Amino acid sequence: MVLAYLRRIGSLHTNPVYRFAHEYSVGRRNYSARGSTLEQAVAAFRSVVGEDGVSLGTAVRDQHGRDESMHRCCPPDVVVWPCSVEEVSALAKICYQHQLPIIPFGTGTGLEGGVGAVKGGVCFNLGKMDCILDLHQEDFDVTVEPGVTRKALNASLRDTGLWFPVDPGADASLCGMVATSASGTNAVRYGTMRENVLNLEVVLADGTVIHTAGRGRRPRKTSAGYNLTNLFVGSEGTLGLLTKATLRLSGIPEAVVSAVCSFPSVQAAVDSTVQLLQAGVPIARIEFLDDVMMDACRCYSSLPYVVAPTLFLEFHGSKSSLEEQVTVAEDITRGNAGSDFSWARDAETRERLWKARHDAWYAALALRPGCKAYSTDVCVPISNLPQVVVETKRDLMQNHLTGPIAGHVGDGNFHCLMVLDPNDADEVQRVHQFTERLARRALALDGTCTGEHGIGLGKKALLCEEVGPQTIKVMHSLKAAMDPANLMNPGKVL
Amino acid sequence: MVLAYLRRIGSLHTNPVYRFAHEYSVGRRNYSARGSTLEQAVAAFRSVVGEDGVSLGTAVRDQHGRDESMHRCCPPDVVVWPCSVEEVSALAKICYQHQLPIIPFGTGTGLEGGVGAVKGGVCFNLGKMDCILDLHQEDFDVTVEPGVTRKALNASLRDTGLWFPVDPGADASLCGMVATSASGTNAVRYGTMRENVLNLEVVLADGTVIHTAGRGRRPRKTSAGYNLTNLFVGSEGTLGLLTKATLRLSGIPEAVVSAVCSFPSVQAAVDSTVQLLQAGVPIARIEFLDDVMMDACRCYSSLPYVVAPTLFLEFHGSKSSLEEQVTVAEDITRGNAGSDFSWARDAETRERLWKARHDAWYAALALRPGCKAYSTDVCVPISNLPQVVVETKRDLMQNHLTGPIAGHVGDGNFHCLMVLDPNDADEVQRVHQFTERLARRALALDGTCTGEHGIGLGKKALLCEEVGPQTIKVMHSLKAAMDPANLMNPGKVL
Repeated sequence: MVLAYLRRIGSLHTNPVYRFAHEYSVGRRNYSARGSTLEQAVAAFRSVVGEDGVSLGTAVRDQHGRDESMHRCCPPDVVVWPCSVEEVSALAKICYQHQLPIIPFGTGTGLEGGVGAVKGGVCFNLGKMDCILDLHQEDFDVTVEPGVTRKALNASLRDTGLWFPVDPGADASLCGMVATSASGTNAVRYGTMRENVLNLEVVLADGTVIHTAGRGRRPRKTSAGYNLTNLFVGSEGTLGLLTKATLRLSGIPEAVVSAVCSFPSVQAAVDSTVQLLQAGVPIARIEFLDDVMMDACRCYSSLPYVVAPTLFLEFHGSKSSLEEQVTVAEDITRGNAGSDFSWARDAETRERLWKARHDAWYAALALRPGCKAYSTDVCVPISNLPQVVVETKRDLMQNHLTGPIAGHVGDGNFHCLMVLDPNDADEVQRVHQFTERLARRALALDGTCTGEHGIGLGKKALLCEEVGPQTIKVMHSLKAAMDPANLMNPGKVL
Repeated sequence: MVLAYLRRIGSLHTNPVYRFAHEYSVGRRNYSARGSTLEQAVAAFRSVVGEDGVSLGTAVRDQHGRDESMHRCCPPDVVVWPCSVEEVSALAKICYQHQLPIIPFGTGTGLEGGVGAVKGGVCFNLGKMDCILDLHQEDFDVTVEPGVTRKALNASLRDTGLWFPVDPGADASLCGMVATSASGTNAVRYGTMRENVLNLEVVLADGTVIHTAGRGRRPRKTSAGYNLTNLFVGSEGTLGLLTKATLRLSGIPEAVVSAVCSFPSVQAAVDSTVQLLQAGVPIARIEFLDDVMMDACRCYSSLPYVVAPTLFLEFHGSKSSLEEQVTVAEDITRGNAGSDFSWARDAETRERLWKARHDAWYAALALRPGCKAYSTDVCVPISNLPQVVVETKRDLMQNHLTGPIAGHVGDGNFHCLMVLDPNDADEVQRVHQFTERLARRALALDGTCTGEHGIGLGKKALLCEEVGPQTIKVMHSLKAAMDPANLMNPGKVL
């Protein structure tokens, strides 16, 4: 039915997975009346950022209308490239004056359609603001502009003995990671973005510049007033444009050891995880791949992996503390019928060992050449993980879907890497229904419909189910208080 | 001048440190018109919680009008004792109908005057709601009602291998600790309340019940919608009444070792701290006491402490990992001219060793019998700690004030335990001016005016200086969105 509707309204972009396309179109229709407004705004933008700082080109707009998800491309009407917070503020003021939607853009590596301009408007590409500012080595903090990516920051920190450990996989911009409350493989040890942001500079919808914890402040903890910093973490661009983030850094571990271990069942792998955490082993990464995922990795990488539920582990610490962590881990996994560990102590072997995990996306895609991949994201209390994984695997099988599972099992967070033919409307529909069932299964087990990808476009209805109507009402009231004209990334989250 | 004003307006309570008394009185005067409203409300309260659940007695009201700070007692007009969230909601609805202020009360162990009924109103004593609910050992989480204290929770967890590590010293209620964003000695390893709350049940000003992350949800991480949980952490009762908190638990460490080490200078002690953190030693506590504090402790406890800047350290881990932590710590402190460690491995010796730190408050009071103590609270980036401590000690000396220093140095957070004669108006004034200078000194060094006590009554002006007028405006807009009639703990934070 959704697809029939889409065919009717026409103007389809390249990708027919249109879960929320009817919502996009509503805003769009109203928007066309703003043509002359846009022209005036564009002239004003040029006066701020020059000719080169503004683009109306179709190809450029298309590039900015989508992320790495399966959501339809929704190009903005114009893309701007500010170079400073002053320019961001000036541009936002113009948008405010003309009531044009504002969509922040980092690297476009999001997974829930957060950058789509569903109501048209102005895409702020923040990539030119890529300075690393104010590194305080002794205090383990650094301030970055929004265009700085995770890898660029870590490259610049290489000789300091410090690093920023939050690692969602993609080389996302750090402010984009703030916006989606990203996390990834290291979160079990180092926390998510929520725990690693000390302060944010934000441009509000009307162009006002604020510092959530006060300008230049970077104490490791504070009880001063409302925690605005964490209100912006995970706000997905709907409350303001992030123009600076002060981040907490960690010491690079003296030594790192990785290991792989296979199990006879999902339950055995998860039981091992729980026992490792209970034993106080300060494990840095503990990643789960199911048998289907391991099979895909084996075929893709030609490595001699066992096709069974598998844990990829990584230990960080001093050399001698690692020995102990590893001994405890081996005892625990053996007690759960785990295989002997494959070990990796040097960087090269470690890289080879983790290849399966890092290549999971491509390995999944290789299962069905010519298809597209779409990563789901749910998170449940760890003890509910075996049930949700077993039920999900049954669901996939019953519905003839390809969806190998990979997860940050120490946090109860996992993904099905759905591989589907975007031209097969029936399969698209079945994947859509499956992902909704998966999210509801997580909700039924005290979990969340998203552990780290965010709500974006695709999970707004699920968010309502997750938190309930009264809590949604509070979220709406906060949004209305901070952005009364609904200009900031409209149509996302709520 | 302030004191003269206070004498003029009369009706002084027992304590003459009236820093913000002029503000209290403004609300109070307006309030007297609400007499008959109050009578009607009280009758309605009784229909909800019975005769025993409501008190208008002067002594009871006085008990509820102050915390452990030096702020003047501001008794509420009535105290109610609900036994369930339904009763809290029903009582809040009555308050909303009659536009009566609502002040949540836990254990009254706050330090910034958060419970004072500065505009009169209804104190909600939540002490009867003291059930520990839904312990999930495998998932390291537990849900508690607002009357459960930190020690009560840890006593009930004793046989589970788990504990709740946030330790502000006082046996505060856990929801009170949520409200003030408490932390304390273990925060350097285990985080503050911000990092240890998964979900909150909250009764809003109009009686609506919400669950910040959705009813019953307890994933270890989530990116679903705005982070309401952390908006309520540290909101000091100004946004809603907390009626349940789902908390993250930690594994009880296999072994614990404590040590004490003295230094020739503040700089040497702080340098050791920074180097310990940089070396990745996962230290559980690292507390700093200055020479004045150590002298007070030596006199009070008759223990052979050295009168010098001193670090109290605690290491948590497995037995062998502790050996390594300790070796590294000894190397580092020796490199900074620290004394040999005094060690404590068994619980009894550890308790004796930590006596100085635990008794700091009483040791400070014993410096001047008959006086009162008042604990300041600032937090700066660690590298700025030596400067702020040295300048603060000079300030204390120049102004003839008694203020030994104790601090959670791993977080850059420290307190001056001001000992003063509350009947000496001049000294009261000098202490007041000193604490404001101290806060501004922290602000000038990228820090915050409160690391863990909160803003309460005493630091509202400092909060404005700290975050700036635009950020304050955003905080006001959030408060107005969630509590438009300003009924929730009015006069606090903003």
